[in-house]
Formats: sequence, C-alpha cells, structure tokens
Amino acid sequence: MSILVVGSVAFDTVETPRGRRERTLGGACTYFATAASLYSQVRMVGVVGDDFDAEHLAFFASRDIDTSGLQHAPGRTFFWSGRYGTNMDACETLDTQLNVFATFHPEISPAYANTDYVFLANIDPDLQIEVLKQVRSPRLTALDSMNFWMTSKRDSLTQAMSMVDLVLLNESEIRLYSQQHDLLRGADTILSLGPKALIIKRGEHGAMLVTRGDSVGERFFIVPAFPIEDVVDPTGAGDTFAAGVIGYLAATNDLSPQGLRRAVVHGTVVASFTVQDFSIDRLRRLDREQIAARYSEFRCLTYFDTLTPAECALFTGAL
Amino acid sequence: MSILVVGSVAFDTVETPRGRRERTLGGACTYFATAASLYSQVRMVGVVGDDFDAEHLAFFASRDIDTSGLQHAPGRTFFWSGRYGTNMDACETLDTQLNVFATFHPEISPAYANTDYVFLANIDPDLQIEVLKQVRSPRLTALDSMNFWMTSKRDSLTQAMSMVDLVLLNESEIRLYSQQHDLLRGADTILSLGPKALIIKRGEHGAMLVTRGDSVGERFFIVPAFPIEDVVDPTGAGDTFAAGVIGYLAATNDLSPQGLRRAVVHGTVVASFTVQDFSIDRLRRLDREQIAARYSEFRCLTYFDTLTPAECALFTGAL
Repeated sequence: MSILVVGSVAFDTVETPRGRRERTLGGACTYFATAASLYSQVRMVGVVGDDFDAEHLAFFASRDIDTSGLQHAPGRTFFWSGRYGTNMDACETLDTQLNVFATFHPEISPAYANTDYVFLANIDPDLQIEVLKQVRSPRLTALDSMNFWMTSKRDSLTQAMSMVDLVLLNESEIRLYSQQHDLLRGADTILSLGPKALIIKRGEHGAMLVTRGDSVGERFFIVPAFPIEDVVDPTGAGDTFAAGVIGYLAATNDLSPQGLRRAVVHGTVVASFTVQDFSIDRLRRLDREQIAARYSEFRCLTYFDTLTPAECALFTGAL
Repeated sequence: MSILVVGSVAFDTVETPRGRRERTLGGACTYFATAASLYSQVRMVGVVGDDFDAEHLAFFASRDIDTSGLQHAPGRTFFWSGRYGTNMDACETLDTQLNVFATFHPEISPAYANTDYVFLANIDPDLQIEVLKQVRSPRLTALDSMNFWMTSKRDSLTQAMSMVDLVLLNESEIRLYSQQHDLLRGADTILSLGPKALIIKRGEHGAMLVTRGDSVGERFFIVPAFPIEDVVDPTGAGDTFAAGVIGYLAATNDLSPQGLRRAVVHGTVVASFTVQDFSIDRLRRLDREQIAARYSEFRCLTYFDTLTPAECALFTGAL
C-alpha cells in the first residue's frame, strides 16, 4: 500500500553536543519519506525553492519516492536552525525562515487522492483539513501537530484531529491541548474527538499507544525507547517514529490491535537509528535487514513472559 | 526463602496535590517490609523510639514480619516531612529529624545472619558494609542509596556496591556517581565495580535492568511503569519497587535472567499500587491475587510479539 505524506521540506543547520552541520536536508516530510520508503512506496507533498539541488531529488528517486507532488516555487526553501543542550532533550530554535513554505497550499493530484495511508506531518491544521477533504476513502489517516497550533489554531486542530484515525503527539502537547495535567486523562480528551488511536511520543522514554479497549491491558500499549548510547542528533526522531508506524501498517495492511502495536515498535526502532547520526545520514545507510535485526533485539530487551492464548486473542481482532 | 531488610522506620508528614497526612507510618524499611511480606517472610532491622505505638508492631506481626531485629531506643522515632509539587516528580523536604536513627547501628543476630535474601535500604554505606560483613553466604544481596552518600561518603558507597549482587538507583543518582551524562555509560561504571546487575529506577517511566549480556537484547531489559491515573502519594514507590523485585526472587528463588526480568515487573506492579494511596495504606489492603491480576494486565499492555525459541533460550541460564 502506498503512503502519502504532506509536510515541510527544509534545510537545517543543527548544533548538538556531538557537532554542527550546516544546511543539511531536513523537514518533517523529508525525514518521514526517507524512513517510510524502507517499508512502502511514498508520495511526497511539499514545497521547495530555487535553492533545492537536483541531488536531493535524485536521492528521493533512488528510494522510489514519488516527488511529483513536490511543488517548486520561486524563492528559497524553508530554513531552520537549532541548538540542542547537553541533555539533548531541549532544543533552542535559533532561526526560522519560512520562505516558500509561508504560502504553501497542498495540492493533491487525482493519482495521489487514492492513496491508502495518509500522514499529515506538523503543518497548519487548516492545510491538514484541506488534504483530508481531498483524499478518497483512505484506509488510515494520521496527523502530527505541535504546541504552536494548539494555542494559535485550536479550533482547526480540533477539527483536523476529529477527521483522522490516528493522532501522534508528545506529552507536553497533550497536556497543553487537553488542559489536564494527568496524561491519561488528557489522552481520553483527544480520543473523545474521534480518532481510533492516540500515540504519545515520549522521546528517550519510548511511546504509549492509547485506544478504547475495555481493560488497562487492551487500552494501553507501552514501549520503552530502544537504548542508544551516544545520541548524535535528535532532529527528525518524531517524524521517523511516525514513518516506522505508518510504514509498517502500509506494508502489512494489518490494522488489528497487534498490528498497531508492532507498528509502534517499528516506529521506536526506526527513530533509534535516526538519532545515531546528523540529518537523514543514518537513514541513507539503513536497510530492511538492519530494521529487522533491531526489532528482534527490541523483542529480547522487553521480554519477560509469554501471554496465555486467551490474552493473545485480545489483540487479533479489528481495531 | 526469607528476606532481611535494613533501613529506616519513620513517621512521615506528607503533602501532595491530593491531600495531606500527618505522622503516618513510613521509612524505607517499613515500606519494603510491608510490600515484601506479600511474597515471603521478612526480617526487619531498624530502630524506633518511645513514640512507636504497639499498633504498628501488631500490624507487622499480622503480616508475619519478624521485628525481633527492630531496636527500641530512648527518644523519638525518625521523622520526615515533605511536599510534592503538581507534577508529583519533585519532592521538597520540609523537615528531617533523625532522632534515634542518628546513632543507629544494625545488629544482625545469628538467626538473621543466615537469611538468603538481603536488602540494604538507603542508609549510610558504612552501615551497609557492617551488615554485609555480618551475613553468611546469602543467595542475593542488594542495596539502594541516594545522592547524599555519593558526595559525602563516596568511597564507602563504592565499597558497598562492590560487595552486593544487585544495585538499585535512579537516573540522577547514576549520573552523579558515575560523573557521566550518558546513562548507559554510567551504568557500565557501576557494573564494573562488581555487581551482577543494576536496576535503574525511572519513576513514571518505569525501570531498566542492566547486566553483562552479550547483545543489547540480553544486556538490557526495559519496562515502562504501569499507568496510574490519579497518583495520590509517590512516597515509598522506590522502596516497594525493590520489595517487589526482592520479594519475587525470594519467593521463586529463580535467579535466571528471566527470573530477574519477571522480578523487575513485580517491582513495577507493586510500586504502582503504593502510589495509589498515602503512606502504606494501599499496601495494607493489597493481596497476592491483586498483584497477580495486575501482573497479567502488565503482560497485556506490553505485549506485541512472541520470542522465537532461540531467543527464549537466552534468558533461561544462570545470571
């Protein structure tokens, strides 16, 4: 199954305790498409400027990523610059130049409109809604967002979340949107809007999948992060987490609770590779065998017991 | 198998966003013994003052806890007062009165010296060493500590850690002791002292077990925390986590990697009950069936895949 991704393509200048890189390829759409292309065919919708080199398009083509939806506008490509502190958990934005992204409107071609898996990266929720109105009966839609839209475009974001199957947010975003300190209550607030599932991204602490199951064990799925020594650059971890999730779902077309849980683990695994190098550099060298090997390692490092057949049966029905 | 615990018995006055309780039964030894008594017979070593009511001793007796090692000294029992903020993750100590605990020296009777499982709660590492020199060929020794001893008695703590099989610390303590920001490198520093295993306590984010396995999947075991809505009082979570771990090991006498992993899950489960009420109030009402039910729920909420037989075989040998 193909995947449609809508989001930013950017150049990033990033400084972390492990070094500094200038104007490397970045943006949520770039990170997502590069990682998801290891699972399935990806269609990109975004915008780039005159300064976007042919080598980048050639790279996307080498991964069989369809860039026919990538608009080329006069001006410069979106530019972002940030610096991570010692803990790698806080990032200070030094510069943001929207450039051609400021007037971006996603255009979904008839060929793209029939894509089965749709991921709306963190962009203006009004644009997310525009896309959702253009796609035809996708099998799964998902969106990411950020604090900025929760305060500046709350109503639009509420509408966008009510239109998708899966929402991905981090802990502080859930607390901000729901106005509840208790994370699990905040998750309920978001699920009550309509999505079938919410994935809470917790960075170095992993992720939590929240659905509407009857028992705690069905309602929640919690995974730690894959342990990485010497994180190099956390940029793109969230977007490639989403790519592992959506990529696995699109590759298997398995939307059972068990399929969704395995997808979350794939998200964790892919994100763990991303942070091991700057920009998309580790993802350029990544292949399916390495993902499978780390998935197996992850299975070992979380193993402690086996389910009874009755417990297993809880996770095989449709979501 | 019996369990020996050495640590503080105290009265606590605690304030959390959910309420305030004055002079309730507390202290690491109390929390640990109460929780561990659900798994195995517990022997307490600590000290109380003239103000320690007979009703508390009667409660310990009702749980078949051996308090013959609990010293009674003239003066008042150790008193601690603290206040938790909105996040429940930071606690401000308002008052500490060591009282009879200031001159405490653990005395291990000949009957106690043959205990198979020994837990040294957070006390002066010189006292931990005194105990370790008095016990005879225990099957497993474990210790907890805190930031204070890492700066004030670093050499003693190093010696104590080198003498035990299992060390339990939280993330900031590992970073402080190892002087390394990277948690996994810090864990290696502590394992290099001699312990077979280190458990990193991560509060609401669960726990990580680090051993000397060959692969990442053998070297690390990572579990999330059991999700609790409406935490009432986090006091004692760490001590009862240790009680679930040591209690399960003592009850099964299974020190294989798989046994240790299941023990860590029991720690997580028991700690999740502790925080649902003030003091040891939830533990007073807790029974083995409730622990087993939550363990089963935990198995469900972390389930995503099954190990291959070859992967399973990694966890059945001796630690």
